[in-house]
Order: sequence, then C-alpha cells, then structure tokens
Amino acid sequence: MYDFGLVGLGVMGRNFILNVADNGFTAFGNDLDAEKVNALIEEGGDKAKVNATSDVKTFVDGLSTPRKIMLLVPAGKIVDSVIEGLLPHLDKGDIIIDGGNSFFTDTDRREAYLKDKGINFFGAGVSGGAEGARKGPSIMPGGSRDAYQHVKPVFEAVSAKYKGEPCVAYLGPKSAGNYVKMVHNGIEYGLMQLTSEIYDLLKKAGGLSNEELHQTFAEWNQGRLQSFLVEITSEIFEQKDDLTDNDLVDMILDKAKQKGTGKWTSQNAMDLGIPVPTIDVAVSMREISALKEERIQADELYDRPTPAAVDKEEFVSKAEQALYFAFIITYAQGMHQLADASKEYGYELELGEIAKIWRAGCIIRAALLADITEAYQADEALRNLLLSPSFVEKVKDTVDAARELVGYGAANGIPLPGISNALTYFDAYTSSRLPLNLIQAQRDYFGSHTYERLDREGIFHTEWENK
Amino acid sequence: MYDFGLVGLGVMGRNFILNVADNGFTAFGNDLDAEKVNALIEEGGDKAKVNATSDVKTFVDGLSTPRKIMLLVPAGKIVDSVIEGLLPHLDKGDIIIDGGNSFFTDTDRREAYLKDKGINFFGAGVSGGAEGARKGPSIMPGGSRDAYQHVKPVFEAVSAKYKGEPCVAYLGPKSAGNYVKMVHNGIEYGLMQLTSEIYDLLKKAGGLSNEELHQTFAEWNQGRLQSFLVEITSEIFEQKDDLTDNDLVDMILDKAKQKGTGKWTSQNAMDLGIPVPTIDVAVSMREISALKEERIQADELYDRPTPAAVDKEEFVSKAEQALYFAFIITYAQGMHQLADASKEYGYELELGEIAKIWRAGCIIRAALLADITEAYQADEALRNLLLSPSFVEKVKDTVDAARELVGYGAANGIPLPGISNALTYFDAYTSSRLPLNLIQAQRDYFGSHTYERLDREGIFHTEWENK
Repeated sequence: MYDFGLVGLGVMGRNFILNVADNGFTAFGNDLDAEKVNALIEEGGDKAKVNATSDVKTFVDGLSTPRKIMLLVPAGKIVDSVIEGLLPHLDKGDIIIDGGNSFFTDTDRREAYLKDKGINFFGAGVSGGAEGARKGPSIMPGGSRDAYQHVKPVFEAVSAKYKGEPCVAYLGPKSAGNYVKMVHNGIEYGLMQLTSEIYDLLKKAGGLSNEELHQTFAEWNQGRLQSFLVEITSEIFEQKDDLTDNDLVDMILDKAKQKGTGKWTSQNAMDLGIPVPTIDVAVSMREISALKEERIQADELYDRPTPAAVDKEEFVSKAEQALYFAFIITYAQGMHQLADASKEYGYELELGEIAKIWRAGCIIRAALLADITEAYQADEALRNLLLSPSFVEKVKDTVDAARELVGYGAANGIPLPGISNALTYFDAYTSSRLPLNLIQAQRDYFGSHTYERLDREGIFHTEWENK
Repeated sequence: MYDFGLVGLGVMGRNFILNVADNGFTAFGNDLDAEKVNALIEEGGDKAKVNATSDVKTFVDGLSTPRKIMLLVPAGKIVDSVIEGLLPHLDKGDIIIDGGNSFFTDTDRREAYLKDKGINFFGAGVSGGAEGARKGPSIMPGGSRDAYQHVKPVFEAVSAKYKGEPCVAYLGPKSAGNYVKMVHNGIEYGLMQLTSEIYDLLKKAGGLSNEELHQTFAEWNQGRLQSFLVEITSEIFEQKDDLTDNDLVDMILDKAKQKGTGKWTSQNAMDLGIPVPTIDVAVSMREISALKEERIQADELYDRPTPAAVDKEEFVSKAEQALYFAFIITYAQGMHQLADASKEYGYELELGEIAKIWRAGCIIRAALLADITEAYQADEALRNLLLSPSFVEKVKDTVDAARELVGYGAANGIPLPGISNALTYFDAYTSSRLPLNLIQAQRDYFGSHTYERLDREGIFHTEWENK
C-alpha cells in the first residue's frame, strides 16, 4: 500500500511525486498515458517506493486509507472527469486534492458535491513551477481542517522551507487555497509587469547593455529587492541564443501570453470592490502586447520623444527605489484583496500565515515577504500594508524615485503603467480628500443618484438649479 | 387600444411614457403601485392618450397587437418576474422591451426563453437620465431585426435628435443593445473620472475658485470639449448649498458609488482580452474613494508634496488639452471593446451607427462623437480610433500637455490615474516594441510556457543555463 497517490504525470506531477518519495513516503502515480507511467517507473527506481499505473482501480486499490490522492491535471472539465473516474473506487473519508489552478467557484462546487459522498476535497494551489514541484514548492491548501491532518505530514515534508519552516499551512475551508493561489498569481502578474517596465527604462533611457542589466538585477538581488523574479531576470539577460549570435532576450517576441489567473484576480477584485490597479494594468499590458500588428501600424503614425539624457548611476539607483516601492504596493493590493475575500467567502484567512508560506518556494517569494509576515504578525487586523509602521518608512524612502521615474516615462514616451498605477494608488489611498465629490455631484445631477455630505449624516438629493 | 405599453412608472418610466404621448402615440402604463398609476393618470391629462392601471390583464388587453411593452424596472430578478406576469396574457408576435441596464447574458437568456414562446424580446439601453427620458434619450435596442420595425416609429419619435437625425437605431441581435449600453456606461465612468482629476488639478495646483472652475468648464464647453459632462460640471460649480453658506460641491462627501455597469465593462473587456485601462482605473478609484476612513488614517502617516507654483493661464490651457486627449483615448478603448465584442458575440455592430446615436441624448454625448462617427463612416473596419487619420492630428496636438500634467501630478502627489492610464495606453499602443519579451522569457524560465521569436515562426522553449 502506497502512502500517497498522484494523478497526472506531466512534468509537474512527475516532479511532485518524486519529491514525495525523496521525503520517505511511498507514492503511486496514475496517468492514462502509458508512456508517462513508464517514464515515472523508470525514473523512480525502486518500485516499492514509487510506482505508477494506467489503471484507475489498481491505482486506488494500491493506496492506504484514508487515501490521499492529488490531481495535477489542467484546470477545467478534466478535473471533473478525473474525479468521476476515481469515485466508484473510493471509500468514505478518502481525500482528493486538486493541485491545479482551478477557479475558486469550481472548487466550491466540487467540495460540496464530494462532501455529500463522504469524500474530502481540497483545492491546493502549488507554486514554484516544475523546479519547485521537484525541490520544494509553496503549497496553499484549503478544505476540511480535520482531513488536513492526514495530508499535513506529506505536504510539510515536500514543501519548500524558509529557515526550516515549511511553506505550507492549512489556509481555510472550501476554496480558500485556490483563492489564495489566484491572488498569488495576480501579484505575480504585477511584479512581472513592473520588472519589464524597469528593464525598458534602463535599456532605453539608461542605455544599459544586457550585460549591465544582468549585473544590475544581480546586484539588486543581493539587497532589499531579493526575490525569485529579480534573480531570474538577472539570469535571463545572460542567456545566449542558440539560433543566432544574439542574446536570447532580444530575439523573443514582445507578445505576452496569459493563462487567466491574473485576469480572474482583477475581475474578482472588482466584484469585491477592492482596488488592485497595478494588477489590472498588468493584465491590460499583456493584452496590448498581443496587438503587435496594430502597434507597428500605430508606431508609424506618431512621433515618439527621444529619451532625455540621464546620469546612469543615479538613474539605476532611482530605478531600484521605484521598483521596491511598486513591489510593496503590489503586495499591499493583493493582501487587501485577500483580507476582504476572507470576509466575503468565510475563509477566515490569517494573512500572516499566507505571507509566511510565500517566503520560499513560490514565484513571488521575496525578502519583502519576511517583512510582510512580521507586519501581519504584529497586527492581525491590519487593513493595508501601507498602514503598517514598518512599511511607512520603506515607502517614504522610495516614493520620490517613483514620482521622478513616472514623470520621466510620461515626458519621454516610455510607458510605465504598472509603476504609474502603483503611485496613483498610493497618492489616492493616502488622500483624506479626493475629487470624487464631483462624481457624486454629476451622478446626482443626471441620475438623481443622491449623495452623502461631509458635515452631516444622511442621504441627500439636490434639485439642480440650471438643469 | 393603446399604441404602446410601459411597465414601471418610476421617474424614468413616467417620463418616458409622457414623452411617447407627446409624440402622438397613445400609451398605457402599468405599475403595482396604485399611487404611481394615479400620478401618471393625473399628469397625463387626457385618458384617451395616456392611461395607466395596476392590473396586468387590463393593461395587456388594452394594447393594440402586436403589443409593444417596454419595461423600465430595476435590472435583476424583477425583470423576470414582470415577464412571467405578462406571459399568460400575451399573444404570439408580441414584443417586450427591457429598457433597464440588464447584464447582457441575462438578456440573451430571456431572449431565447421568449423566442420559444413566440414573443420577441428586446434589450434596449436608454441613456439620458430622467430628463432624457422626458425630452429625448439615446436608445440602444437589440433583438429581432424584423420585430424592430414595429418599435421603430415610437423609438424614432421619442428619441433625442442630432441635427434632425434620431438617436436610436437597430444595433444587432440578442443582447447587442444592452452590451452597447454597458460599454456606453464604461466610457461614462472614464470621462467622469477624468473630469474629477482635472478639477483636482485646477483646484489644488491652479488655485481656481469654484467660480473660476465654473467659468473654465463653461468656456471649454464652447469648444472641442463640448459635451454633456463638461456642461453639467460647469453648472455644478455654481450650485449653492441649501444647508450652509458654501458651494454645494464642497459639502459633498468624496465617496463615489457605483451600480455595476462600469465594473461589468472592465470585467468583460478582460474576458475578451481588450485593454480598457482608463475605464478599469475609473472603477478602482470609486473603490478607493469608498475607503474614506482608511484614507484619513493613511493621510496622517505620509507627507504630501506642496504643489509647485504654476502659470495659471497656461496651466488651464494644458488641462484642456490633456482632458481632450484623455477623452479621445477613453472613447477609443470603448469602441475597441465594441468591435471585438461584436465578433465574439455575433452582434454585427456598425460602430459608425453607434457613435451616431450617441451624439445627442445620452450622458456621453459630446462634440467628439461627430468626429468619431465620421472616422467610422470613412473606414468601417477601423481597428482603433488612434489609427484614424483625423484622430492622429488631434492626438498629436494634445498629447504633450498630457505628458506634462502626468509628470506634474506624479511629482506633486495629485493622483491622476485616468489621465496616466490614457497616456500609458497611448504610449504602449503606439510602441512597435514593448518590453514584454522579458515577461515571456520569465514565463518560459519558471513555467516552460514557451515563447515566439522576432526572427522566425514557431513556438520555442529554452533550457535556461543557470537554472
């Protein structure tokens, strides 16, 4: 009898199951594709430790109860069909864990459906890519708290470790895990957009070569910007192209694809009424990037300013500050969304725990997450990172560089929508008075939508004089 | 027998039915609320021309066939329940028109449901507020092209007129009308956010008094910015408060509410993959405005730059240019969304026709819409307003002012997210090369998501060296 079952032996699944076996658990894999089954058996070595089969019954019967079966298959209908295939062979109390990026309402539906049948269902986001799955990902499980006890030993063993602490924790009931993973990916979209903007600035205005970009990001990665994305960005600029004599980065088409999790984050934030404009515009920019042919046509119709000369060293220092500022704002927006989603969906999320399990293993891991963890540990009810005393100083130190670079980008035709939206979010969020009184006046004027007042309670409507 | 029936005798409904009667049609109203029924009978005068009843059967039986019954009731379940109430009394070929802001997929569902029963269902967005309903709104109907012939005479008579042309046209099948109205409202959100930002700038940096703001917007309304929203903004600054000695605008709380159509526009644009960042951030700003208590708290934690002195006259001129630029970009984003939605949902929209019926009656009516109409008449397949020769000049003339003000806002802590996003959208859309090659490199690095190349066709993946 194997300790742990895994359905879907693609790269992620194969790596995850080998990781499980490395950590002293026996594991059994299942995939319809016989080639993938054989590949795992071969790579696993000792069949007593890792084995695999194409037959669902053999697979289920080979697992110790309560069975712990993880699915690493593409999100969507395939998850439902795998579940239907397993169901006839399961016993009450067995556990199915969906490790994919399923939309959180799908997880809620599946959880309710399986609960009726006595099966525990978990949605568990897994971040870290193929390498993370093999060496230690960040895992974000949501589902039944009781059933989690059966899964916990395996997950804590296979997950990434941050100073010895496992990057996994029970996050909450129902779809809490998938929701947290969705927002993780939204933040990821934001951070990636921001690094691409800084790259654009450093290249076009700072005149940095790829070698200098490599050095700059590598240096930044030694400081407060230390993070997986800054690290790999540094490495990307070093990569040579196999097909030409150029650096690979210069040969890659500037059309960014997406798989939907960033979009979902933005769309759901709007449903909750939470502003996440840096994430929103990261989604928009991928969309604009896709319009390559139109962009080429438009470029010919308009003149572009020639970037003004800059002091290279000072400019690089400003870029570091602005990127740090915008990273903070992006995490702040994502954490704010989690706080409100927790209330709306009854997840009872502990934001400090979430920041904690993001400190290693996942794509958005960063030195900043240790600070975010501390901020939420110091004040569990923190409404926004910007209100945390430890972040006030970090932001004050760096916001002026963001102001300067946004001005530079605007004047010189270098689009910095992510950094701009981080800055305008900051300036709006820290404004006790905003000009949206005018919008309420307009709404009352044309639609009698009423307004509130600054000086007294109540709902008011005006019969506008010149109407 | 009455020519036209209307269910829902709130302000909009009463005004709409009186407008119908003014134009020589007899009209019959229906509302559960006897008070509203009596109010209409009283205001209508001659019962042979306008009458009303609380009884659904009496109402339906009093209409000439094919019956034309318009609903002006709140969007949502109430629309379904009104339809169910009418159904037993209707005959095949009768027409129901939903004049509310129903979500477009609800309209598709209702249209299919009623088609099975032989009833023609229209979703018809109506814009212009209460005053528009009374004096001439812009109407955006979608549904069966054949059935529209029965509705057309009434709609053309009651609608607003632009140089004699009615602001109504058959837009397309199914939910085409509701969809167009939704995007209309998304554009409205954008334009309102932009005017509020310019107000903030003129007040805080330009030091304009409310009287000067009134004069400035009034003057702008005589020029290329001529529009309903600029006009009412001018009038808002003149309004005195009834309860204090102040100007009303200064007493209105800066928390802007929303009813969802702006949010829907942004969310659906993301589903379609269309960038509408100026509309997105208008939604975000309403959300940030709602966080009044947090904003007050945050304001105390951070310093804000004192706005740098400006040359008032020059600053006002720059503001006019920047607002015009950002208005153009907002319409461009909305029209782009319509173009792609038309393909996705099979609406077969004619964008020139839509711009045409927006030239009067609706909230986003503006001199600019005459230019937009001409641009689409000149080139039906126009992909984006920014590619239209007539708009290239307008944009070139004004973009530098937007560059300057975005820089000013960034440096001086005045949040201009709408104008910033208009500018970064423009700079990105007109860039043949964007830095999103880095994002594709990152995606391939951590997730093996592959990439395309600039120099050859195909899908590529790299085994990254330092990984």
